[in-house]
Amino acid sequence: MNNYLSKLVFLVIPLIFISCNKKNVNSKHTAYGNMMVRMAEIEVEPEFMEDYLAILKVESEASVRLEPGVICIYPMYQQDHPNQIKLLEIYADKEAYKSHLQTPHFKHYKKTTLHMVKSLQLLDMKAIDPETMPKIFLKLTR
Amino acid sequence: MNNYLSKLVFLVIPLIFISCNKKNVNSKHTAYGNMMVRMAEIEVEPEFMEDYLAILKVESEASVRLEPGVICIYPMYQQDHPNQIKLLEIYADKEAYKSHLQTPHFKHYKKTTLHMVKSLQLLDMKAIDPETMPKIFLKLTR
Repeated sequence: MNNYLSKLVFLVIPLIFISCNKKNVNSKHTAYGNMMVRMAEIEVEPEFMEDYLAILKVESEASVRLEPGVICIYPMYQQDHPNQIKLLEIYADKEAYKSHLQTPHFKHYKKTTLHMVKSLQLLDMKAIDPETMPKIFLKLTR
Repeated sequence: MNNYLSKLVFLVIPLIFISCNKKNVNSKHTAYGNMMVRMAEIEVEPEFMEDYLAILKVESEASVRLEPGVICIYPMYQQDHPNQIKLLEIYADKEAYKSHLQTPHFKHYKKTTLHMVKSLQLLDMKAIDPETMPKIFLKLTR
């Protein structure tokens, strides 16, 4: 079991590198239908890339660690245009998102990166066929 | 434990609705650096949406179930433009992706949806800060 678990930790989970918040398991934020899925598409001024990524990492980590309603944050950049950032963000519900906007770490991120961001697009998304996922999770736990 | 597991299955995992392939845990596809992350952005002709989604569901499910190298498929659509589809796809490596293109289910999907797709953009992506994810997974297992 330990061997299996360590493989999960070091192979599968880093591969999908989804950050998920344990607190959600036992929180009031449980209604699947209320979930908020978003793709944030951000173009960063190239000269600020290093600073921007450093600030984004801190903000993402703090959001998942401190906020029960922040379920997942999945930041990535486009290989051939590294200053094109995409974040897949999943919140328990709209209240969780509103609460996120009021946190010190989000406000700090917003304030310190404002001049680094060339453009920002926020796309509200919906999952296709999410109902199959519990079965797939069961595959992982067998 | 059962209660905790059932909460995980029915709340957290559907919320993130990531489809992950157990076979990867024990497969040869383990090199994190070789991983291939992609965003596929697809515009579907509106009159074919229903047919397209039905075919996509079958293809996604079969890919994760049958192919060790298909780690995750995460399909979603844009709320205000439902015919704008985005798929987050993670393959173990480029060989796994090439192999995926040769499967009967992918070929069937491609052939049957060709006339339904108005535009297709494939974006190669890289994760930002994936090294923190094992710690986050440990949070989930405590």
